[in-house]
Amino acid sequence: MIIDLRSDTVTQPTQEMRAAMSNALVGDDVYEEDPTIKKLESMSAKLLGKESALFVTSGTQGNLIAVLSQTKMGDEVILDENSHLFFNETGALASIASVQSRTLKGNNGKMLISDIIESIRGEDIHHPKTSLICLENPHARAGGRTLSLSYMKEVFTLSKEQNISVHLDGSRIFNAAIELEVNPHDIAQYTDTVQFCLSKGLSAPVGSVLVGPKEIIVRARKWRKALGGGTRQIGVIGAAGIVALEDMINRLVVDHDNAKELALGLKSIVGDAVSVENTETNIVMLSARKLGFDAANFINLMKLSGILANAQGKDTVRFVTHRHITKKDIKQTISIVKNIINKK
Amino acid sequence: MIIDLRSDTVTQPTQEMRAAMSNALVGDDVYEEDPTIKKLESMSAKLLGKESALFVTSGTQGNLIAVLSQTKMGDEVILDENSHLFFNETGALASIASVQSRTLKGNNGKMLISDIIESIRGEDIHHPKTSLICLENPHARAGGRTLSLSYMKEVFTLSKEQNISVHLDGSRIFNAAIELEVNPHDIAQYTDTVQFCLSKGLSAPVGSVLVGPKEIIVRARKWRKALGGGTRQIGVIGAAGIVALEDMINRLVVDHDNAKELALGLKSIVGDAVSVENTETNIVMLSARKLGFDAANFINLMKLSGILANAQGKDTVRFVTHRHITKKDIKQTISIVKNIINKK
Amino acid sequence: MIIDLRSDTVTQPTQEMRAAMSNALVGDDVYEEDPTIKKLESMSAKLLGKESALFVTSGTQGNLIAVLSQTKMGDEVILDENSHLFFNETGALASIASVQSRTLKGNNGKMLISDIIESIRGEDIHHPKTSLICLENPHARAGGRTLSLSYMKEVFTLSKEQNISVHLDGSRIFNAAIELEVNPHDIAQYTDTVQFCLSKGLSAPVGSVLVGPKEIIVRARKWRKALGGGTRQIGVIGAAGIVALEDMINRLVVDHDNAKELALGLKSIVGDAVSVENTETNIVMLSARKLGFDAANFINLMKLSGILANAQGKDTVRFVTHRHITKKDIKQTISIVKNIINKK
Amino acid sequence: MIIDLRSDTVTQPTQEMRAAMSNALVGDDVYEEDPTIKKLESMSAKLLGKESALFVTSGTQGNLIAVLSQTKMGDEVILDENSHLFFNETGALASIASVQSRTLKGNNGKMLISDIIESIRGEDIHHPKTSLICLENPHARAGGRTLSLSYMKEVFTLSKEQNISVHLDGSRIFNAAIELEVNPHDIAQYTDTVQFCLSKGLSAPVGSVLVGPKEIIVRARKWRKALGGGTRQIGVIGAAGIVALEDMINRLVVDHDNAKELALGLKSIVGDAVSVENTETNIVMLSARKLGFDAANFINLMKLSGILANAQGKDTVRFVTHRHITKKDIKQTISIVKNIINKK
Repeated sequence: MIIDLRSDTVTQPTQEMRAAMSNALVGDDVYEEDPTIKKLESMSAKLLGKESALFVTSGTQGNLIAVLSQTKMGDEVILDENSHLFFNETGALASIASVQSRTLKGNNGKMLISDIIESIRGEDIHHPKTSLICLENPHARAGGRTLSLSYMKEVFTLSKEQNISVHLDGSRIFNAAIELEVNPHDIAQYTDTVQFCLSKGLSAPVGSVLVGPKEIIVRARKWRKALGGGTRQIGVIGAAGIVALEDMINRLVVDHDNAKELALGLKSIVGDAVSVENTETNIVMLSARKLGFDAANFINLMKLSGILANAQGKDTVRFVTHRHITKKDIKQTISIVKNIINKK
Repeated sequence: MIIDLRSDTVTQPTQEMRAAMSNALVGDDVYEEDPTIKKLESMSAKLLGKESALFVTSGTQGNLIAVLSQTKMGDEVILDENSHLFFNETGALASIASVQSRTLKGNNGKMLISDIIESIRGEDIHHPKTSLICLENPHARAGGRTLSLSYMKEVFTLSKEQNISVHLDGSRIFNAAIELEVNPHDIAQYTDTVQFCLSKGLSAPVGSVLVGPKEIIVRARKWRKALGGGTRQIGVIGAAGIVALEDMINRLVVDHDNAKELALGLKSIVGDAVSVENTETNIVMLSARKLGFDAANFINLMKLSGILANAQGKDTVRFVTHRHITKKDIKQTISIVKNIINKK
Repeated sequence: MIIDLRSDTVTQPTQEMRAAMSNALVGDDVYEEDPTIKKLESMSAKLLGKESALFVTSGTQGNLIAVLSQTKMGDEVILDENSHLFFNETGALASIASVQSRTLKGNNGKMLISDIIESIRGEDIHHPKTSLICLENPHARAGGRTLSLSYMKEVFTLSKEQNISVHLDGSRIFNAAIELEVNPHDIAQYTDTVQFCLSKGLSAPVGSVLVGPKEIIVRARKWRKALGGGTRQIGVIGAAGIVALEDMINRLVVDHDNAKELALGLKSIVGDAVSVENTETNIVMLSARKLGFDAANFINLMKLSGILANAQGKDTVRFVTHRHITKKDIKQTISIVKNIINKK
Repeated sequence: MIIDLRSDTVTQPTQEMRAAMSNALVGDDVYEEDPTIKKLESMSAKLLGKESALFVTSGTQGNLIAVLSQTKMGDEVILDENSHLFFNETGALASIASVQSRTLKGNNGKMLISDIIESIRGEDIHHPKTSLICLENPHARAGGRTLSLSYMKEVFTLSKEQNISVHLDGSRIFNAAIELEVNPHDIAQYTDTVQFCLSKGLSAPVGSVLVGPKEIIVRARKWRKALGGGTRQIGVIGAAGIVALEDMINRLVVDHDNAKELALGLKSIVGDAVSVENTETNIVMLSARKLGFDAANFINLMKLSGILANAQGKDTVRFVTHRHITKKDIKQTISIVKNIINKK
C-alpha cells in the first residue's frame, strides 16, 4: 500500500460528498441560478464574516481573481517571496493580472512590518502604485506555519492607513484557525478578501471560494468569466463543498495530531533536521540536506518503500497529513525514514 | 411549468451522469493522476482525430487557452465579428491573451476567403503578425448555422500556405456533424485545435475539452494552470463527460427535429420573421423587429406565459432546443407566440 | 532628382527649426524642468482649447497613451477598422493597452452613429466594458478625408450620454481644420483628448502632443514613463515643435492646393481612378487596380522615373504632398503617370 | 548659483552637439533612411562588439524592449531588487512586458551566483519559465558600484548552460569601463544585449542605444514601434549622440575624480557616513541617517544653500557628478555639508 504524503490535495471525496453530488439541486450558475452554489456561497460568506462570496475552480483562480479585482494594470503587489501566489502560480500575477510583484523575504511567511512600510511606493512617475498586500495563512512553503492574529491586525491596520487592500491566501485557513484557536472569521476580519479551498484537508474534489465586499465580488464574477471559470451546473461540485464546510473542518485536528506525531517520531531519529514546534498544522518539513541527502534522492528512496512525499527545492522534504493518513501510516513512515538513514 | 428555451446550457445532468459522478474513480489531476479524466481526454482526442486532449472547465476557457497556446503577445487573430470568442468572452482575447482581434463581417459565421486573405498581415513593423484564424461551427449568434466541410478545408488550406494556425470553437460540434452528416473528426481534420463542450446539448453539468497536437496541449496545460483551471479530483465531472460522449451525441437529432418543428410552426404565424431552412441545428431565430416588437419586450410577454427565451441584440429572439424540451413544449411555445401576435 | 510623395513624414526640419534647436533653452523634462517643452505644451493646450498637454515622441505613442489613460485592462474601444490606431500601430491596443478593439466599417473613417450605438456594451459578464471611442480626422487610410464638425459633435454627444470618452487621432488635425475652415479647437471641443503631430506637414523632425483634461494628462505622463517616452533635454526637439506651431500651420494650404492639382491632373489621364472631390487635404489616392495594375507594380514603375509613392493594400497608390513638393514636381508626377499608362 | 548634483541626467548638450544637431543629415528613420542614426547605430554596435544596434529614446525604453525581445509573456526574469529596471521603471516589466520579476537581494547589485542558480525554474506547470537575467553595471542605486568582469563572465557562463539570455542595463557602462580599466566591449562580451545611454555623463540631450544580435534587434525594432518609439528625422538627436560617443567618453574620468574628491572631503567631516572606496564611478552616497538626519530634511537644508541632491529612500543622500560640476563646486558642497552638520 502506498502512503501518499505529497499533499492534502490528493484527498478523495467522502461518501457523503458523493451522495450529495449525486442528489444536488443544480441550475445554470452563469445565470446565477444554481441553488446549491448559492447556498455554498452564502455559507462561505457567513463563515468568514464577509459580505459576499464566489465559487472558483481552484485556489490559484481565487487568488488571481482577487488580485485582478483589487488592482489596476501596472500596480505593484507586496507579498512574500515564498508565497504560493508568487512562487507556484505560473507567473500569472504578471502575465494575466499585469501587476509587478514586490517580493519580500518573510520569516516563514511573516514579512517584517518595517519591510512592508519601506516597500510601499509614494507618488512618483518612476514607481508603480502599491495597491495590494497578499498574505498566506498558513503558509505552505514555510511548512504550514501560521501568522498570528496580532500580526495580521498590524498589517491590516497599516494597509488601511495607506489605502491599500489586503488579500489572504487562506487555502488552508481552517488549519490556521485550529492552530490559532480562533474562528475563521477572526482571521478574515483583518483582510479585504480571502480565498479558501474546499479541497485539500476538507476533501472536496474541486473548488475554492473567494469572499469579500460585494463590490469586489461583482468585479470578481466578471474576471472569473474572462478566465473561463464561469460554469453551468457546478452545484454538483458545490454540494461536495457544502459537506466539506459542514462536516470536515473539525476533523482537521486529526491531521494536525498526525503531523505532530510524525514530527516527534522523526525528531528522535534525525534530530534537528526536523522541528516539532514548527509543525503547527498538517505539514512536516524535513531537511534532507542536514542528513546528507538531496531531497530528490531521499524521496526516491522513500518511494521504493511505498512512501510518497514532495521535494521543496533541493534540500527539503515535505510531508502533508490528510484524511487518508492513519496513525499506522505515520508509524510506517517513521520506520521507513529510519531504515533509509541507517542504511546510509 | 416553465419552458426554458434560453440556451442548451441549462440542461441538467442525467441520472446516468449522476450515478457515474457518484462512483467515479478519481485522482489528483494536477499530478495527471485522475484515471477518469485521462479516459475522457483519450476518448476526446480519438473522437476528434487529434493527438492529445485537455479537459477545461468551460468553452470560454478552452478557447482562451487555444489562443494563448498558438499565438504570442502582440499577434493578430482573424475571426468573425459575431463569433462567441470575440463577442461574448469578456474581451479576454486582449486582456488575457494580449492579441489583437481582426474581426471580419462573416455571413452567418462564414468569412469570405478573399477577406481572410486580405486580412493576413505581411512583414511590416506597423503590423502585428497574423498567427491564428478562429472559426465557430455551428455558429451560435448566427442561429446555429453550420460551416461546410469544403469551406473549412478552404480556410485550412489557406492557413497552412501562410503558416497560420486554425482553431475551431466547436462548442456544439456534434450538432454540426449531425447537420452536415459527417463524423466530428471529418470537421476537426481542417483545424489545428478544437474546443468542444460536454455541457450544452450533451447535458454534462460542466466541462469542455480542447484537442490538438501534443506540443500545443502541453503548452495548454500550463496556461490552464495559470488561469486557475487546473483542478484535483475533477474526474467526478469527467465521469459525466464520458457519459455525455458515449450516450448523448446521438440524441441531439431530437433537438434538431424540435427546432425545425418550432421554426415551421412559427413560420405559419410570423412568415419571414423566421426561416425554416436556416434552422440547421438546435437554434431558432425569430425577428421580433419584423413583427413590430423590441426583442426585450417580446421576451417579457413570453415570460408571462411561462416561456423563456433570450434576446440577441434589440431585434432578435433566440430559442434553443435541448433535452428538456418536448414536442408538447414546442406546440405550447408556438401557441403562445400566436397569442402574443394576435393580441398586438 | 527624386520626388518623394510617400508621406509627409519625410519632411526635413526647416532652417528656423535647426536654429531654434541649436539655441534651445533646455532642462531635464523628467523633472519637468525643460522650459522649451513647457512652453510647447502650454501653446499646444491653448491651441486645442484643452487644459493640459504632454509632449510625446510619436503619434503612435500619443494614441497609445491616450488609450492607456482612459481605459482599464479588459475594456473595449470602438474605432474604425481602417484607423491608423487599429491598422498601423502594431497591435499595441491589445498587447500594451490590453483593450479589445471593436472595429466598425466606416465610410472614409466615418462610422455610422447607429453602428456605434449598437456596439456599445451594456452590463453583462460576457461583455467587456465600452470605455472609449477613437476617431481620426483627417483619416489617413481614407486618403485624408475629413470628418465634419457636426459628425464629431454627434459622436461626442452620444459618448457623453453613455459615459464614454472620445479620443481623436488628430495627427494631421491642422489639415482638417483648413479643409473644414474652422479653428483646431473647434474640432477638439468634441473630444476628451487629441493627439496631433509636429512632424508630418508641419515639418518638425520628431514629436507629437497629447492634449486633454489635467487629470488624464497626469496619468498619461506616468504611462509615458512606463513606455520609455520620458526624456531629458528634449526641449531641443520641442524648439522645433514651437516653430512648427508658430510658422508652419498656415503653409499647409499649399500642400492642399498641390494635392488638388495632382488629383485634377491625374483625373484628365486616368478618369475615375482618382477623385478630385475626395482630395480634401494633402493626400491623393489613385486606384491602380482600375488602371489594370497592381499597386506594387505601379509604384515600381514610377520609382524608375524618380517618383516615390506608397501602396495601400494591393490596389491603391497613395501620394502625399508636403513642404518639399513643388508645382513642378506635381507636373512631373502627372507626366510620368501619363507615360506609364500610355506604355501599357 | 545652483550646484545640481541630483543626477547626471541634467547635463546640457555641448556646443559641438548643438552644432551637430543643427547640421545633421537626416531622413525618415521609420523607413530606416536616417543616415545619422544609421551611423550612430553602426558606431554603437562596433563599440560594444555586437552585431546590431537600435536607437531608443531612453534607457527605460531600451531596457523594456530588451526584455520584450528576449522573453515571452508569462516568463520570469531574474534581477536585483534594487535594479533600476525593477525599482524605477514604473512596473513595465509586468504591465507591458508581461513577465514576472524574480528579484534577488544583491550586494551592491551583485546577486549571489548560488542565489541565481537556485532561482532558475525547472519544467513545472506551477512555474514560469526563466528566460532572462538582467544585470546593471554600474549599479545606480548601489551608488555607481561596478560588477567585475569575472562576475559578469560567471553569470554569462551559467546563463548559457541554462539557455537563458543576459541583458545588461549599461546606462553608464562607460563609467564602469573606466573604473574597471577595460574596454566597453570587454564588458559587453558577457551579455546578449546591452542598453547604454547617450545622455547622462555623455551629455547628449536624449537617447540610448540597445545593442545585440541582429535577430533580437529586428524584434526590438518592432517592439519600439509598438511603444511609439519609432521616430522620423531623429538624426537631429542622433548627431548629438555621435558627438557623445566620439568626444565625451574620456571626460568621464573627471567626474570620477570629482566624485572621489567629494567622498574624501565628506569623509573628513562625516566619517563612515560616506565610503571613499565604494565611490567607484560618479556617484557618492551619504548616509543622512548616520548623521541623525532624514534624507529629505538633509536635502532641504542643502537646497537652502544652493546644493541640489536626491534622496534615495529615507536614509540616504545621493550626489552625482557630471560635466557641469567643477572642483570649486565640490569644495563648496563639502563646505555646505560641514555647515549643516556643525549647526545641528
